[in-house]
Amino acid sequence: MNEILSGKVAVAGIGATEFSKDSGRTEMRLAVEACLAALNDAGIEPAEVDGMCTFTMDHNPEMDVHRLIGGRDMTFFSRIDYGGGGACAPVMQAAMAIASGAANVVLCYRAMNERSWYRFGAGTPLANASTAPTFIAANHYAWYLPAALSTPASFVAMAARVYMEKYGVTSEDFGRVSVAARDFAATNPKAFFHGKPITLDDHQASRFVAEPLHLLDCCQESDGAVALVITSLERARRLRNKPAVVRAAAQASAQGQHRLTSFYRKDLAQLPEMGLIAKQLYAQSGLGPRDFQSAILYDHFTPYVLEQLEEFGFCGRGEAKDFVRSGQHASGGALPINPNGGQLGEAYIHGMNGIAEAVRQIRGSACNQISGIENVLVTAGSGVPTSGIILGRD
Amino acid sequence: MNEILSGKVAVAGIGATEFSKDSGRTEMRLAVEACLAALNDAGIEPAEVDGMCTFTMDHNPEMDVHRLIGGRDMTFFSRIDYGGGGACAPVMQAAMAIASGAANVVLCYRAMNERSWYRFGAGTPLANASTAPTFIAANHYAWYLPAALSTPASFVAMAARVYMEKYGVTSEDFGRVSVAARDFAATNPKAFFHGKPITLDDHQASRFVAEPLHLLDCCQESDGAVALVITSLERARRLRNKPAVVRAAAQASAQGQHRLTSFYRKDLAQLPEMGLIAKQLYAQSGLGPRDFQSAILYDHFTPYVLEQLEEFGFCGRGEAKDFVRSGQHASGGALPINPNGGQLGEAYIHGMNGIAEAVRQIRGSACNQISGIENVLVTAGSGVPTSGIILGRD
Repeated sequence: MNEILSGKVAVAGIGATEFSKDSGRTEMRLAVEACLAALNDAGIEPAEVDGMCTFTMDHNPEMDVHRLIGGRDMTFFSRIDYGGGGACAPVMQAAMAIASGAANVVLCYRAMNERSWYRFGAGTPLANASTAPTFIAANHYAWYLPAALSTPASFVAMAARVYMEKYGVTSEDFGRVSVAARDFAATNPKAFFHGKPITLDDHQASRFVAEPLHLLDCCQESDGAVALVITSLERARRLRNKPAVVRAAAQASAQGQHRLTSFYRKDLAQLPEMGLIAKQLYAQSGLGPRDFQSAILYDHFTPYVLEQLEEFGFCGRGEAKDFVRSGQHASGGALPINPNGGQLGEAYIHGMNGIAEAVRQIRGSACNQISGIENVLVTAGSGVPTSGIILGRD
Repeated sequence: MNEILSGKVAVAGIGATEFSKDSGRTEMRLAVEACLAALNDAGIEPAEVDGMCTFTMDHNPEMDVHRLIGGRDMTFFSRIDYGGGGACAPVMQAAMAIASGAANVVLCYRAMNERSWYRFGAGTPLANASTAPTFIAANHYAWYLPAALSTPASFVAMAARVYMEKYGVTSEDFGRVSVAARDFAATNPKAFFHGKPITLDDHQASRFVAEPLHLLDCCQESDGAVALVITSLERARRLRNKPAVVRAAAQASAQGQHRLTSFYRKDLAQLPEMGLIAKQLYAQSGLGPRDFQSAILYDHFTPYVLEQLEEFGFCGRGEAKDFVRSGQHASGGALPINPNGGQLGEAYIHGMNGIAEAVRQIRGSACNQISGIENVLVTAGSGVPTSGIILGRD
């Protein structure tokens, strides 16, 4: 067991705004609403918050959110780059800050009007390259734009085609991920696609966004915010809700890493950064693939959900297609994935809503509650430098 | 002593490019040059680097710098916001990452063409607000721009005037900070102002940038890069150079905190976030103001150097003017400050060049070596959410 990253801290509170396509208010307001909701869920006063962490792509400075929720002094703050790849890293940051005494109560948050104010899918990689300004991002994307690779979907499509050819994976296999997610979303009142399941025929009939990816292989674009309160396990035990114990937390960037464009690697049908996450999480926690009753796998695009199943050893290399054909990932399967409906069905809050779902599953309060939950794996954005955590019952 | 932040890790390598007003090459190239120089200084191969940390304002993604220096897998990466306020925080991040097993060798870096490509002093707070996009920063700065407060110097000038009035501090007192810095720079071959000392008359005769701040109260704008290699103290002891032990590391944002514009606080003649840094550093290390033989105090603007002396207890509240009038901060004084020439004299690399100087002082290899060095205090940007470290001899 890792002395700092395993078993020392817990998610004690979760909060969120509604998930929509047009929030009608600023991202700062969304951030503050989600943070206050998370603190209320935990039963912790804002004045106790002394640490904050968010994404570099988040537009709401820690300092300002902290002041606006009623915070006083703050002794820890940091950011993680690479979009959704950063989703689980703030939890890791919180664990390190609390273990080192730098903070006692850390708020992690992500707030965005990603549908109503801007859209990641709109073919503007230059504007979306977070910390890299236009003139630097241009150097990178100039190699791809002339080949009509201008959106996240187009980048993932390239790798997905290799994966299909190498292992006999079909578009229907990708569709099975979407269908299961929309089934879960259909019974989640908070999901944008509540009450709107789809069939495999719907998936096949949906237009191509970037062949072989259909529209229904791509996650939503959403407005909304999610926040988490992290504190010591000891403290969390005395709070309002059952703690979701952080059993492991890791980051990874692997050799040849680019941002959704790691095209110079020898094998494009793998996600080595995710394999490196798996290796670390299992080593830190002493857990393995058989120890999870559910998993939150980052689902911006369906092909990478299949590849993640392989990287984490839930099945052998190239066997994820069989895993989903037998429905193991869906309701009633051996490893139900994203029971909130995921980013395909609930909302795309850069992975943070998935962490909140893992906490609900561990508390036993999820709308699509999986029985017998002991540990839930949560991953962050795939195809970029990424992160992952394992949350478990106390 | 803090179990994680004190005595567990050390700065094992330092590297830098030349400091100029026009580097003639990209910021990415500067970052790579400084990182390779730091690794060479430590005697560590690039393939061993598994962690990286920089400023949110840095334009060079960790992933790219890591790949370009010849890195392979990376298991830790993070960013710190608030410009120069982040200068010491990457060292804290490295300490936490190494203590938790997330990484073994962490590179901290900052590379910028801040003079030739853009200028922070040019009156464009909207463009310089790092993570906050224009429409959010505009909400904040709209209160100040109509009053002609449009540059960092203009914001600091407001607070400096209060400090002068409250404690009888004069412009000459500010000038004494500049004169001492330029004296040190004059004998530092790496300093931009090498061989160019100034007199107090020069300071007084320099034009007002934002009254009461003269041109010579303001640090330079520079092109250049600095990198640090951090590893466990145990490992550092077996490397090429003597380790500079991290004895404490802290971050702080204090109640009513804004970015150089904390104008709603009751007393504008204090830097409470820096007081909170002092409190933490002293508690972690067991050290106090008498235990330092030199200090690197962030010197973007001279008034805040005086106020930092007070926040760290090197003198009483309002007594920094007497401290500098008696020359305690200058060559031969009781606490020589910024013996590299500081950002006023050497270069403005967002505080990172000051950390490198502290390491040289501890090694005994500085060009203006202070005798009997045991511990050096280093602070980061003042007037913003900030950070600080104490480095010491093994």
